[in-house]
Amino acid sequence: MIRFESDYLEGAHPLILKKLEETNFEQTAGYGTDPFCAGARERIKEACEGADVEVHFLVGGTQTNLTVISSILRPHQGVLAAVTGHVNVHETGAIEAVGHKVLALASEDGKITAAQVRQAYEAHWNDGSHEHIVQPGMVYISQPTENGTLYGKAELEAMHDVCQELGLALFLDGARMGYGLMAETNDLTLGDIAGLVDVFYIGGTKVGALFGEAVVICNPAWKKDFRYLIKQKGGMLAKGRLLGIQFDTLFTDGLYYEISRHADELAMRLREAFLKKGYKLRYDSYTNQQFPVMPDAHIDRLKEKYSFEFWEKADDSHSAVRFCTSWATKAEAVDELIHDIELL
Amino acid sequence: MIRFESDYLEGAHPLILKKLEETNFEQTAGYGTDPFCAGARERIKEACEGADVEVHFLVGGTQTNLTVISSILRPHQGVLAAVTGHVNVHETGAIEAVGHKVLALASEDGKITAAQVRQAYEAHWNDGSHEHIVQPGMVYISQPTENGTLYGKAELEAMHDVCQELGLALFLDGARMGYGLMAETNDLTLGDIAGLVDVFYIGGTKVGALFGEAVVICNPAWKKDFRYLIKQKGGMLAKGRLLGIQFDTLFTDGLYYEISRHADELAMRLREAFLKKGYKLRYDSYTNQQFPVMPDAHIDRLKEKYSFEFWEKADDSHSAVRFCTSWATKAEAVDELIHDIELL
Amino acid sequence: MIRFESDYLEGAHPLILKKLEETNFEQTAGYGTDPFCAGARERIKEACEGADVEVHFLVGGTQTNLTVISSILRPHQGVLAAVTGHVNVHETGAIEAVGHKVLALASEDGKITAAQVRQAYEAHWNDGSHEHIVQPGMVYISQPTENGTLYGKAELEAMHDVCQELGLALFLDGARMGYGLMAETNDLTLGDIAGLVDVFYIGGTKVGALFGEAVVICNPAWKKDFRYLIKQKGGMLAKGRLLGIQFDTLFTDGLYYEISRHADELAMRLREAFLKKGYKLRYDSYTNQQFPVMPDAHIDRLKEKYSFEFWEKADDSHSAVRFCTSWATKAEAVDELIHDIELL
Amino acid sequence: MIRFESDYLEGAHPLILKKLEETNFEQTAGYGTDPFCAGARERIKEACEGADVEVHFLVGGTQTNLTVISSILRPHQGVLAAVTGHVNVHETGAIEAVGHKVLALASEDGKITAAQVRQAYEAHWNDGSHEHIVQPGMVYISQPTENGTLYGKAELEAMHDVCQELGLALFLDGARMGYGLMAETNDLTLGDIAGLVDVFYIGGTKVGALFGEAVVICNPAWKKDFRYLIKQKGGMLAKGRLLGIQFDTLFTDGLYYEISRHADELAMRLREAFLKKGYKLRYDSYTNQQFPVMPDAHIDRLKEKYSFEFWEKADDSHSAVRFCTSWATKAEAVDELIHDIELL
Repeated sequence: MIRFESDYLEGAHPLILKKLEETNFEQTAGYGTDPFCAGARERIKEACEGADVEVHFLVGGTQTNLTVISSILRPHQGVLAAVTGHVNVHETGAIEAVGHKVLALASEDGKITAAQVRQAYEAHWNDGSHEHIVQPGMVYISQPTENGTLYGKAELEAMHDVCQELGLALFLDGARMGYGLMAETNDLTLGDIAGLVDVFYIGGTKVGALFGEAVVICNPAWKKDFRYLIKQKGGMLAKGRLLGIQFDTLFTDGLYYEISRHADELAMRLREAFLKKGYKLRYDSYTNQQFPVMPDAHIDRLKEKYSFEFWEKADDSHSAVRFCTSWATKAEAVDELIHDIELL
Repeated sequence: MIRFESDYLEGAHPLILKKLEETNFEQTAGYGTDPFCAGARERIKEACEGADVEVHFLVGGTQTNLTVISSILRPHQGVLAAVTGHVNVHETGAIEAVGHKVLALASEDGKITAAQVRQAYEAHWNDGSHEHIVQPGMVYISQPTENGTLYGKAELEAMHDVCQELGLALFLDGARMGYGLMAETNDLTLGDIAGLVDVFYIGGTKVGALFGEAVVICNPAWKKDFRYLIKQKGGMLAKGRLLGIQFDTLFTDGLYYEISRHADELAMRLREAFLKKGYKLRYDSYTNQQFPVMPDAHIDRLKEKYSFEFWEKADDSHSAVRFCTSWATKAEAVDELIHDIELL
Repeated sequence: MIRFESDYLEGAHPLILKKLEETNFEQTAGYGTDPFCAGARERIKEACEGADVEVHFLVGGTQTNLTVISSILRPHQGVLAAVTGHVNVHETGAIEAVGHKVLALASEDGKITAAQVRQAYEAHWNDGSHEHIVQPGMVYISQPTENGTLYGKAELEAMHDVCQELGLALFLDGARMGYGLMAETNDLTLGDIAGLVDVFYIGGTKVGALFGEAVVICNPAWKKDFRYLIKQKGGMLAKGRLLGIQFDTLFTDGLYYEISRHADELAMRLREAFLKKGYKLRYDSYTNQQFPVMPDAHIDRLKEKYSFEFWEKADDSHSAVRFCTSWATKAEAVDELIHDIELL
Repeated sequence: MIRFESDYLEGAHPLILKKLEETNFEQTAGYGTDPFCAGARERIKEACEGADVEVHFLVGGTQTNLTVISSILRPHQGVLAAVTGHVNVHETGAIEAVGHKVLALASEDGKITAAQVRQAYEAHWNDGSHEHIVQPGMVYISQPTENGTLYGKAELEAMHDVCQELGLALFLDGARMGYGLMAETNDLTLGDIAGLVDVFYIGGTKVGALFGEAVVICNPAWKKDFRYLIKQKGGMLAKGRLLGIQFDTLFTDGLYYEISRHADELAMRLREAFLKKGYKLRYDSYTNQQFPVMPDAHIDRLKEKYSFEFWEKADDSHSAVRFCTSWATKAEAVDELIHDIELL
């Protein structure tokens, strides 16, 4: 079975394991106060092109989302997000468990617009009963989205502007950030992002690390006491250096970008193969997740040899499915899949 | 200005004030342990036709909803409700603030169906990632709904059956219960309801009391320690007897039913007037809330003399509005309004 | 049975009932936006000697405490309070239920000192692991305390100063405020208090109202969106005018002060009687709660005719008990009790 | 600098790194549904001597504590714990953040007794106002405790009995479990523990793993839906296999026991050296944490070469400090420290 069902099927990039081994018996202080974390913070600041940011390392995405969101919102505020956003659908109510409603906005492709945010804000404040309704306090977006799509620079600038104007915090979930940065259609750098959002994170789990998400706090207002919140929510790793070592490795000599580009290039080859075969694409993705709409008979045949994710029924005889590439995907596996698609 | 914008515009039925005055200097223990509460509990049990229920008195509806729901759900569970349900839209995220997601189901008229509940349940359990999704643990319905509509006995039985089968708790919000019970289309008694739901409440605030909601716990599993939860959520009134006195009065000599019937009869007169005038009704309500769709010009004219609630735009020149009658509405006020409608 | 076990045994001052009756059929908007609340707010501002405060009305004390505290603290912060403080011992974990630890400070008589607050603050920040420990964010004090004792002006000024210096919010629970203001040893006015704390409340439930607490927010930072928080926590009364009417009545022509003085004077007569009899006093209270330490045999005899609260064992044959007077206590009842004490 | 300040100074046992490397490119499903986790579960069940337990893997201790506790308690219940318990003092209010009060019991050495639990339970239920007080719902103990001390079999049996009798869940935090199991004074096996508590966990982070805690649920009542709770609280590792691989390695060929014994033996050598030098021991620990009370002058001198933790002042010229050994401590480091102590 050749697996394409997710981007966290393997362990970590070998350089990370190597660095873990080399440093294994060094003794360091815990909880992210070690030199490895300090180094990784510096590298990430550099990657953010000198922005005056604060960097923290957490273990996983849900943990990061609930910690960031609860660090910013007051109790009566909720977070605007695409109805398909990870915080709305795949975190077992983690955001509600810390007290906040996810205010879902319609989305066809995982993205939401500045206009939608403004509309939701105005709908709230124009309602005579607004004190009886959860107040929008924050916007959550993913880059790339859960559907593989990307915000362009103009779109993110528009979102930034509306958030600034309306007093909403802007939080960007970058669990698959690398695959977004390296997409051929991308026009955003980490520096751009750091300048446009209040807080974001750079995903490691899905991009070469064993685990780990680097939270980058851009707005000084939200830096205060963030470590307390990490600890309280159970996200402070005792051997924090494990996170430092991983992000230090990923952000040395461009490894993070290189392995992301690898995944995107393979994904583009799949995309071409799907289009050539005449499949529609459920979402127009230039990142590592591809969503072809295939005849169910084709799906059944491919399933004998490949694992991939059922996404949704398209019609009586077709379904959308998801194929993921990653830093670890082998070109040969993609070759073989493409060959088998051609034969269908 | 003659007011129809809500059903909580006045104080309380005079018999309640009278009883408060008569008993004012009696000394009683606090927190609902007094003889007035004991008496009121007995009367409500009788009204429930002898069902083996436990009765508690709280002050308001949001408080009641958040206390009941958090008393039953485990942390990873959410509550299925109509998208228009009070808990979903008008409680400033009170349910999320106690940790639970409201799982909104589509609704045209404020009601949801047993089939929708089954579908939501199955969608959850058939999802391969269901552990990453909030688990449905409870169903919340309102009777009458926020749109004035009613569940019939067959519908409530179907809901009860599906909840029993699927292991979901069934909670009925009866903030306007009286107006439902006395509706000409109603076929449910309090005894029926007590036999079909796990917990419900009988609204006093909107039906003749100064304030107060009587929670009726039918399922023995949820009786345990409920008073702790009332206290923790801030709902335990020090002078609990005030609630006892009010519900005792309401459930003596059928006062609750009589004043509810009064409101419904006036509402039916409005309904007829709207229909006779050729207005469509946004919802087919036989209870104290009526939702005519009127030309905006008519609305503007009526507004000079009457207060009522804008509901939603219907088209470019029409809007749905809400008129409420209540236990306190004067027949003369309704006469005058009908007369003015005829003149429009 | 003549009852002294609490200060919420009766209904309300007759003037309040009268006003409720007079206004019963007036129609007003809900949720505290009515003219009665507006009037009451003005009277309370006047009572605060013109301080630029914001006034809200809630129904009960636990509700008020949890709403105020959760409106101010960030998730990782806790509230410093006397170990005997109401929030620490008698609210079924209401503060923890909204996410915050009560950081209990030792107290002999219900009071805590500015020095204790400073010490707790320094202990926190001097701990190398402070990020692993709940951060003090607020100080909660009661005036009078649960033990009947009072903060003097110098003490409250010292507390204010230390809170200002250390960046802690200062919250004063005035559930029995009237009995404090009228105590012969008191040197604080409402205006003083408004100038020294960030937020406080003036209790109605125990001082002449059917129910109700008037929250006074002095620090502009905490005024923002407070009504959302009241609603979310279930504390927004639909017929908010009931609270307005009561506080308006209490703060008209000095009623609140007059009925409080009545209770204090009767309490002082009891205090004298206890001392004359040779009883020790468990706490040195000049307010409406008195805590004599009596021979158990005397307690048993008094219990045949009077109700009062067991407080704690003093030694093998003595116990501290609590007698409360209130706005409603009759002088004859106190006369009779004193007479019976003399006869013991 | 030779470091003894904690037991999480290094990475992981080399066999774990080796296994991570060997399996790095195997593709597995996520979230703990992989064969490595399945294998590790089996080994832990075997280590529990065939008890019918359910095993889950989480990343860290605070995360585990908050997830377990919130999975069991109802909202109005709190957890009884030693005042020194990790959940009470070093988790930034994680337990309160999920809604529950930690009910602290006095403790001299980190342990609490069955008698204390009974007393707290009875104090609660004998209080006339018990519904106004957090209800004890659970007992939390650590083995070894934060002070290095151990519960003996008879003590744990007594705790089990009282919890069974009173309907309290019993939860044992085994963050340092290995060092307890291998202590020369220990008389408890994992099988014993599995038979005596409702849920416990076996610490990996401090005992040879990079990170990881294995939760063992013994009481069938608490197995239901635990994975939902892990996910909601942010504790479900995407690459769950990392936890499986580590615990599989630790529980193969007795590695967990062997490395724990190593640490304990070195700790016993330190203990002897302290006693020989005439130092008192703050706690009577036979596990990997040692707490000598030393002259401050000695402390200052040792600090030039060694790192260890200040614990508390003993008197004007003496302080208690903490030295930790671990699976990774080198015998030579201990030799050198002992030598230097002799020279003081």
